[in-house]
Amino acid sequence: MTLPKRPSISQLIPRLLAGDRLALSRAISRVEERGDDARELLAGIFPHTGRGHLIGVTGAPGTGKSTLVTGLVQAYRAAGQTVAVLAVDPTSPFTGGALLGDRVRMSKLSGDPGVFIRSMATRGNLGGLAAATADALLLLDAAGYERILIETVGVGQAEVEIAGTAHTTVVVEAPGLGDEVQAIKAGVLEIADIFVVNKADRPGVERTVGALELMLHMAEGAPRQMLHHGQLLDVAASSAENQAAGWQVQVFKTVAASGGGIPEVMAEIERHRAWLVESGQLAARERLRMARSVEQIVQAELLRRLRAALPADNLAGMLEEITARTLDPYAAAERVLSQLA
Amino acid sequence: MTLPKRPSISQLIPRLLAGDRLALSRAISRVEERGDDARELLAGIFPHTGRGHLIGVTGAPGTGKSTLVTGLVQAYRAAGQTVAVLAVDPTSPFTGGALLGDRVRMSKLSGDPGVFIRSMATRGNLGGLAAATADALLLLDAAGYERILIETVGVGQAEVEIAGTAHTTVVVEAPGLGDEVQAIKAGVLEIADIFVVNKADRPGVERTVGALELMLHMAEGAPRQMLHHGQLLDVAASSAENQAAGWQVQVFKTVAASGGGIPEVMAEIERHRAWLVESGQLAARERLRMARSVEQIVQAELLRRLRAALPADNLAGMLEEITARTLDPYAAAERVLSQLA
Repeated sequence: MTLPKRPSISQLIPRLLAGDRLALSRAISRVEERGDDARELLAGIFPHTGRGHLIGVTGAPGTGKSTLVTGLVQAYRAAGQTVAVLAVDPTSPFTGGALLGDRVRMSKLSGDPGVFIRSMATRGNLGGLAAATADALLLLDAAGYERILIETVGVGQAEVEIAGTAHTTVVVEAPGLGDEVQAIKAGVLEIADIFVVNKADRPGVERTVGALELMLHMAEGAPRQMLHHGQLLDVAASSAENQAAGWQVQVFKTVAASGGGIPEVMAEIERHRAWLVESGQLAARERLRMARSVEQIVQAELLRRLRAALPADNLAGMLEEITARTLDPYAAAERVLSQLA
Repeated sequence: MTLPKRPSISQLIPRLLAGDRLALSRAISRVEERGDDARELLAGIFPHTGRGHLIGVTGAPGTGKSTLVTGLVQAYRAAGQTVAVLAVDPTSPFTGGALLGDRVRMSKLSGDPGVFIRSMATRGNLGGLAAATADALLLLDAAGYERILIETVGVGQAEVEIAGTAHTTVVVEAPGLGDEVQAIKAGVLEIADIFVVNKADRPGVERTVGALELMLHMAEGAPRQMLHHGQLLDVAASSAENQAAGWQVQVFKTVAASGGGIPEVMAEIERHRAWLVESGQLAARERLRMARSVEQIVQAELLRRLRAALPADNLAGMLEEITARTLDPYAAAERVLSQLA
């Protein structure tokens, strides 16, 4: 079936819900643009979401997490499930920066109709990226993908947060990066449901595994802290934190390039999903994810209103005053805000 | 002189301007808290800013950029200049995740009254971090530090943006990370004034240098794109972009752990500073930095107002509706926004 280059939202929705890949692709572009019609699109598909399992995969550059993602896709396909990959990682081969070996591995996936791969543009502001990512996940879910992998780089706070909103979060480390301890400090301990030490055929693997297990042991009993920062999120997070105590985070070893250890990681993800459902934690994480989503939409809309209210000439004059030190940034911000009221 | 644990802003300002380190430290804590008195503090010191030269140092984990920062501090001290370091990098030893060797190197700096080192908390929302970082830079500037180094991790978008607001931005790479090409893609080419390939005693250094030089050659003649995202920033960036064409980005090799190549990097930073002043580009970058700062303050204030307007009970009920799929996130956001009007 053909589809216009720029289909209407009412054309897109039924085809997306029927699993049409082209419609899905166009729909994701629409939410990336952050235009007014994204709202109509999301409202239309939202009642059909909530079935796909969201798996965040995050780790520093060089840990081989894209290769691990590729391996997990193959494992899920072998188990008969449909899989989507959303890459929000500027260092990922899925977003275009692939080395030859990665491209070869990825090309094995691209012919399979049960696999959908998409990267998110990381330019523009991060609030916009987080909101577009949340919307794209809803689209993939509504299109019927049973497992949805979100790949982010585990260094920036925002990227860690995006991964942390998944139902199951896999944090990937590798031996010999010399940054194991620091990487753990950077907020990933709080979000990890499963640790994977990839490239486990390299020297130093036991040291990395040991460091992670020690960290986990030290953190045991302490309440799991959700990453949140706002009233909406506080409300949602309080119930999620209370219920999270029953899950034991474990460390797995993989050699993703040859497939070693991948089935065990997939089994652990599925075990975690079953636990989430039984414990009521799935609902708690959904509330948290939705709260974050609402807050992002609100922030973006406030910013849009603000920009619409400000003529460029006034801004240029104001910047001159600030650089001349006759106006400070807070007073300037007050002046801007007064235009809004 | 003693200072109360929580001094008043009017006590802090004169002592900070006189270069009192304790007052400076307390003032930075104040801007990190993002309380109401931060505004008074910044207004008080702002007329005394604009003298320090801001040097952004960014790079992926494992490039040794903290060691390079330490080396640059020592070089500047040997040249008789006062230096401050602001670490906004969750993987940096300056922020607490130090390996033993890093701590030893850093301890050489800590006894020197001409050096001030501070790390920024990276928890909480990124908008808040960027705003607090901008404010802390103003405080360090007002306290009289002649060179101010801002260390960020060159992977997350926000961290790259923070570094990119400096007067001179140094992007650090290292051979053998296998991510050279990807790292360059992640927005750092746009912000680099100077490239440094650190760990230049390792194999593969010429390959890394070659890849960078090829990239720079390919980008030559293309207008330098500032990272920006907003009307305020568009206005400021347009003049900055037009003037940036006259600077030739070069690649330097260092072995920061032994000090090799550091004097050359310092000389290049100073050459860049002189060029900025002569070309008028310094003023253009200041405008861009201030525009970003105002926008951050406005966004934070809007969010604060929003949260104050929303009772927690309503929010919890709203989240239940969303997870039951009877309300979509955009409709929920609209409901939230209507509370503000």
